[in-house]
Amino acid sequence: MSVIEAIRWSDDGHAVRILDQRRLPGAEVYRELRSVDDVRDAIATLAVRGAPAIGIAGAMGMVIAIDEAKRDGVDPMPRLRAAHEIIRGARPTAVNLAWAVDRVMAVATTVAAANGDLRSALCVEATRILDEDRAMCRRIGEHAAALIPDGANVITHCNAGALATGGIGTALAAIYVAVEQGKRVSVFADETRPLLQGSRLTAWELQRAGIPVTVLIDSAAASLMRERTIDLCIVGADRIAANGDVANKVGTFPLALAAKHHGIPFYVAAPTSTLDPSTKSGERIHIEQRGTAEVIAPFGTPTAPDDVAAYNPAFDVTPAELITAIITDGGVYRPPYHFVSTT
Amino acid sequence: MSVIEAIRWSDDGHAVRILDQRRLPGAEVYRELRSVDDVRDAIATLAVRGAPAIGIAGAMGMVIAIDEAKRDGVDPMPRLRAAHEIIRGARPTAVNLAWAVDRVMAVATTVAAANGDLRSALCVEATRILDEDRAMCRRIGEHAAALIPDGANVITHCNAGALATGGIGTALAAIYVAVEQGKRVSVFADETRPLLQGSRLTAWELQRAGIPVTVLIDSAAASLMRERTIDLCIVGADRIAANGDVANKVGTFPLALAAKHHGIPFYVAAPTSTLDPSTKSGERIHIEQRGTAEVIAPFGTPTAPDDVAAYNPAFDVTPAELITAIITDGGVYRPPYHFVSTT
Repeated sequence: MSVIEAIRWSDDGHAVRILDQRRLPGAEVYRELRSVDDVRDAIATLAVRGAPAIGIAGAMGMVIAIDEAKRDGVDPMPRLRAAHEIIRGARPTAVNLAWAVDRVMAVATTVAAANGDLRSALCVEATRILDEDRAMCRRIGEHAAALIPDGANVITHCNAGALATGGIGTALAAIYVAVEQGKRVSVFADETRPLLQGSRLTAWELQRAGIPVTVLIDSAAASLMRERTIDLCIVGADRIAANGDVANKVGTFPLALAAKHHGIPFYVAAPTSTLDPSTKSGERIHIEQRGTAEVIAPFGTPTAPDDVAAYNPAFDVTPAELITAIITDGGVYRPPYHFVSTT
Repeated sequence: MSVIEAIRWSDDGHAVRILDQRRLPGAEVYRELRSVDDVRDAIATLAVRGAPAIGIAGAMGMVIAIDEAKRDGVDPMPRLRAAHEIIRGARPTAVNLAWAVDRVMAVATTVAAANGDLRSALCVEATRILDEDRAMCRRIGEHAAALIPDGANVITHCNAGALATGGIGTALAAIYVAVEQGKRVSVFADETRPLLQGSRLTAWELQRAGIPVTVLIDSAAASLMRERTIDLCIVGADRIAANGDVANKVGTFPLALAAKHHGIPFYVAAPTSTLDPSTKSGERIHIEQRGTAEVIAPFGTPTAPDDVAAYNPAFDVTPAELITAIITDGGVYRPPYHFVSTT
């Protein structure tokens, strides 16, 4: 089994090599980002996506800024400060992107003050962010794979896979590790309207790894559970409240309701960084509304009266009582959930 | 309020006038079907759709066959027998179509044997099928409107509206009659993947009738119930088993699960002809699988790897325990349901 690598250094070490996710599932195209503008564009246009992968791309982009300064024969620090703003601004609401470039910028400031080797230090820091993410995915996968029986039929939603991270994903890491362990696993991938990350991305990366995958419309999952033997559901998370309520891509909540009705375990797999003990419960999570076009003109094809209203929440909140376990790189948590701040 | 009329006689009485539903929601185009081939094509290509509307179109098409025979100066009975086969074959699995054209053919046989006025008799019979359907819709609407409070927010799935019948629909009849009664009603229409009858048809016909409507992806309905005050769900049915289990468009079952979780009444509105007491429960209902293209290449745009498998059931089965009431033209039924044959 070979799991796709969504982001890494190019072979010459002077570019960020990404799989261009805008071209999926039709074509597997890699791009080498050799300028800060390339990195910004790749992030802004969703050529690279998923919170961890975006953060990694941003961090690596800071190293590219130094190469650019050298090529242009200018002082690297002003260029780095500019790159920091440019990359951060590519997706202003991406918390993980800001965190990653801030972390690299802090190293730059320290090393510059000490007259150290800026490029080496930043390359180490960016690579560390990538490697930490890979290790985190691996640990989630190892904890979660233990919950997947041999011969399992698994339903997942959206894309919490290798395409979203520097490693083997979060929810899909469970499947990759289980398969590595010699288990046979079949996956059912919700298409995940409105943006179809399930059919476009999850189906593609699993198929490429040689894992049997079947796509279904989101509202057919309940029927599938009624008709066939489904062993478990596993999904990722955007944010997990102190009480275990989980914010994730819209459609997660009804999938959990269907699982509960059929007595099927429902697992959430996510990095520890997703835990937000400062948010007491899901009721405190504000649900962002996205534009209407995704709903009424999917992929540019108008499918509803063009002036009709649309309700289009970006994510939903699955109440903790529907969640069998939450798996992080730190371990497996079972209800009742009481996540507390460790800082 | 003016509810769309999906099918009626043309003004000259010699054509079946239909709203071409393939053109919705972009354009409101009416076509006059003046030959048996026109009628067959309209049915086969889904220009006319919905079990009742298809049956009506077929019945009216038999009258057109007589006009054609007259134009061609030939004996009408052989032409009628041919038309009967042609129209029946336009959608071979449509039970209601077979029932309607059989009914008209039986009248033709009787009247021909008695040397009666074939055209008048068939025109009366076809019009009777249309009028019976209109009256059935109206009765369903009157029974169901009593369950809709003033100011209600209602969720519906698929299109059980005027576009599917000769009258004001089944589930949507409830809304039309409630609005006629002076109640304010806002409707949330599930888009209804894979074929999007909710956004294409339900949103269009409600908007045209001046009723506020908001479209949402199917898997956002659970979020909507959590965030806002939703008073009830109402949907149509393809078949209702003796114990009250309901087969309807896929996505109905998860909507009912979400309604149950939130304590929201879930109503099914359908003609008495949908009751099938010979089917004891939903477990006996075979769920037909449709082709993969609807899922992985919606509207011609490939959105998944092109050789991926798809699970694409045409409908699902909502267990009776999730259904607050079943409303037919015969009245309102509450659980426990025990439908028995009346023939």
